[in-house]
Amino acid sequence: MRLIRFSRDTGPATLGLIIEGRAVALSELVPDAPAEARAAIAAWDSLGPRIAAADAAGKGVAIDSVRLLCPLEAAGKMMAIGLNYADHIEEARDAGLTIPKEQVWFAKMASSLAGPFDGIELPKVSDKLDYEVELVAVIGKGGRHIGAASASAHVFGYCVGNDVSVRDWQTKTPQWVLGKSFDTHGPIGPAIVTADEVGDPHRLGIRSFVNGELRQNSNTKHLVFNIWAQIEELSKAMTLRPGDLIFSGTPGGVGLAFKPPRFLKVGDVVRCEIDGLGAIENTVVPEA
Amino acid sequence: MRLIRFSRDTGPATLGLIIEGRAVALSELVPDAPAEARAAIAAWDSLGPRIAAADAAGKGVAIDSVRLLCPLEAAGKMMAIGLNYADHIEEARDAGLTIPKEQVWFAKMASSLAGPFDGIELPKVSDKLDYEVELVAVIGKGGRHIGAASASAHVFGYCVGNDVSVRDWQTKTPQWVLGKSFDTHGPIGPAIVTADEVGDPHRLGIRSFVNGELRQNSNTKHLVFNIWAQIEELSKAMTLRPGDLIFSGTPGGVGLAFKPPRFLKVGDVVRCEIDGLGAIENTVVPEA
Repeated sequence: MRLIRFSRDTGPATLGLIIEGRAVALSELVPDAPAEARAAIAAWDSLGPRIAAADAAGKGVAIDSVRLLCPLEAAGKMMAIGLNYADHIEEARDAGLTIPKEQVWFAKMASSLAGPFDGIELPKVSDKLDYEVELVAVIGKGGRHIGAASASAHVFGYCVGNDVSVRDWQTKTPQWVLGKSFDTHGPIGPAIVTADEVGDPHRLGIRSFVNGELRQNSNTKHLVFNIWAQIEELSKAMTLRPGDLIFSGTPGGVGLAFKPPRFLKVGDVVRCEIDGLGAIENTVVPEA
Repeated sequence: MRLIRFSRDTGPATLGLIIEGRAVALSELVPDAPAEARAAIAAWDSLGPRIAAADAAGKGVAIDSVRLLCPLEAAGKMMAIGLNYADHIEEARDAGLTIPKEQVWFAKMASSLAGPFDGIELPKVSDKLDYEVELVAVIGKGGRHIGAASASAHVFGYCVGNDVSVRDWQTKTPQWVLGKSFDTHGPIGPAIVTADEVGDPHRLGIRSFVNGELRQNSNTKHLVFNIWAQIEELSKAMTLRPGDLIFSGTPGGVGLAFKPPRFLKVGDVVRCEIDGLGAIENTVVPEA
């Protein structure tokens, strides 16, 4: 299933699913379904089968007639791993970075969360704006000390993310979090595709384009630490909760790696896509 | 005013105030007050005067008869600044750290938030557990690009925090976030004291004790970057929202700085106190 949030015209945000090219409100299928995505994800064990059993015939509206919003109304935790594709590590070598023995985790603050077709703001304080396409895992069943062997049971689904980065702010101190957490710099979507529909998340083509030009082109099979190892490591420290987001790393081809660097400018269109998950497309806009 | 959350026996959490030694439910003073602390903080411009005008005589229960809970039921952002007292920088010099030109920000993930008298868990995966007393600013009026000169108008109040740290996890990669974000490692309280009652936050004695032994003893006047500069810097990148927490740095005397280091053990009692804000006291317990 493909969980979305959508709106029509200026109407309110509605939690729903994409079913045969239509946006169907969850409440049309299960009248007492939660209105919030994170609550629905937390209740999915009982909610999912009821949705699957519901008759969607004739329900919903054409997907082209709605605006797709961020599939989560708010994020809990957004954790992201750095240097997790061999080719991205290679291109970052000039900055002294090498294949890490340990998983390098950093945070994106929840206020950076954005929708799949929202604008990415060019900050007032920087022109070193960059893109990073990433496979994002969405936690379903929370927990602590989740072993790699059982980690897949804790993933609700997957979506495409862009770990938008402000390079000078990322590196002006050793801690990356500020440069990773500007408003609008965490777009995800277009839908959260449930794990059963994705199957093995470690065999997906992953690409990004800027103004139609292919920039990143890899496959999630090249992850240095895979999703299961990531969940194991994170949950040694912190309880994962339904709706928490794990950005699993970006492949080579980011703007910083070009000589000279090719940073994003106002008007640039960044498209990030992953096989089976669809694409998000965000235009760079001046900061509001 | 002193905003708290409290419970009696096994009753539910109640948002309230400490008034003349009594815990008074906010709903006793203003019947339609929000039940959640962050909502109350967001509505304080209108709510505060109504609370001040209410008659508290005979209301509430003796403060000693209640259990004080975390004054926020959940955190939005928890941002923390490192290396922000000269004496703490001095003691960290062995690790190659010097007075930073830039503010060094890191995140504590929201799942680390805990109450003023909750247990601090000794992790299963580490015995390098340490304490850091900090003045915590609680954002009231949100915003972006808040200049230092107007930053004080955006602070709802202040409380005591312990930036509990797992030192080996903090430094196993250059990114500190995992070692700063273990469950229970962000206790705050005992109340959020409103900014008008605190006055100048940069003249407060700040101390920590382990089992009654004084370990940290400084004054917030020694902050390298003060609260106003911190808000200015953070809000260049991200919108601050009501209830966001800013951990403003810790003075010298942390366990890591002793030779040999003096890490926390199960049963140790850590007391953190700040003039005018009271004290939090957390006992180290085995991870659940």
